[in-house]
Amino acid sequence: DIAEQLAGRFESGALSGKTLVITAGPTREALDPVRYISNHSSGKMGYALAEAALEAGAKVILISGPCQLAPPERASLTRVETAEQMLEASLCSAADADLFIAAAAVCDYRPAAVSEQKIKKQGDAQALHLTLVANPDIIAEVAQRYPHLYTVAFAAETERVLDYAKAKRERKGVNCIIANDVSAAGIGFNSDENAVTLIDAEQELALAQCSKTQLARELIALLAEKSKSTKDIAP
Amino acid sequence: DIAEQLAGRFESGALSGKTLVITAGPTREALDPVRYISNHSSGKMGYALAEAALEAGAKVILISGPCQLAPPERASLTRVETAEQMLEASLCSAADADLFIAAAAVCDYRPAAVSEQKIKKQGDAQALHLTLVANPDIIAEVAQRYPHLYTVAFAAETERVLDYAKAKRERKGVNCIIANDVSAAGIGFNSDENAVTLIDAEQELALAQCSKTQLARELIALLAEKSKSTKDIAP
Repeated sequence: DIAEQLAGRFESGALSGKTLVITAGPTREALDPVRYISNHSSGKMGYALAEAALEAGAKVILISGPCQLAPPERASLTRVETAEQMLEASLCSAADADLFIAAAAVCDYRPAAVSEQKIKKQGDAQALHLTLVANPDIIAEVAQRYPHLYTVAFAAETERVLDYAKAKRERKGVNCIIANDVSAAGIGFNSDENAVTLIDAEQELALAQCSKTQLARELIALLAEKSKSTKDIAP
Repeated sequence: DIAEQLAGRFESGALSGKTLVITAGPTREALDPVRYISNHSSGKMGYALAEAALEAGAKVILISGPCQLAPPERASLTRVETAEQMLEASLCSAADADLFIAAAAVCDYRPAAVSEQKIKKQGDAQALHLTLVANPDIIAEVAQRYPHLYTVAFAAETERVLDYAKAKRERKGVNCIIANDVSAAGIGFNSDENAVTLIDAEQELALAQCSKTQLARELIALLAEKSKSTKDIAP
């Protein structure tokens, strides 16, 4: 199939001369110096994409939330903790990039207030009320700021996966979205395997379950092609 | 000093024939399949204590929240995710134990409701209100259920560290508390070093900053002595 044919070309320098920015891992949003809110994410998919893009000849800037993985040696690594830090690093790096892949599991919300000291248990109070505020939508802001950049978002969903992903692609204004059913056993999150559906303006392409390494190669080959043809027809 | 003298005895079988339960790492409390609340904790201090207790000849049951460390080979390992799972494993394991060291960074609070599906962003709503409920106090319940067990809690604090720790020791009804100033740079949390103050009914003993491995040996040597003398005078 087309994905496999393209994957065979991952060493062909399909991305040589190109600069890719890839975000990976979760963000963490502090409540106080001890507690935080986060998302499940091992960072494996984003790191595998960075590795595959390097193999394809790209210059890679990896913006990573806290995770335990060893970064690919030839990638330029920026470590961040919060969504706001990731946004800032993303806007900086995207200025000179050709492709932007947002694979990080960014927290949609952060605590409205961050306590400088550890919040003490309130006596016998059994409930604590927390107000969260919306975080910036990183990939939407990147896509809006740099309209000529080829932008790719991920949609991690647990139900109505393709519907939500399609709506998200339009709302975020990105070229392409990778839909990921994170409720399925054995794929996504901390797993070593994944299965996704690539959705852009022209098609929906389901990529069968395989290792994240292999899947990353297929995705990079596809995105290299797609970003090239999009650029070719760009004004 | 006394800590170093005792640390020199860590291979003497100070805990041979004894069973220790040690909790380690953070807990995670899900909001939905994607999001969770957690505490900063690498698990390093708890895993180092497990290793030191094994060196001292103890049988070790390690109850661990999600972390990336390789468990000591000879420890019996139970992996848990939430505070409630950690409580259940703790009450089971403590029944036949001699010492219980609660080194885990347990979430005090969990979301009142866990959504089975990923919570969608609420349109343009910029705020999300979350109700948290108090989690069980694991070490307090263990100490109450098993009064003859020698119990040790940790107090991770960012201000008034010794005051809060002393109050916590009495409130939780534990024999000993290890006070940890997690606001100090270079110690605690994800660091490889730590400095703590051991507090029991008789004394406050400050242990100087050193590697978590070395500190764990000092603590295990001290706790072996203290639990022995407490047992000797127990009815």
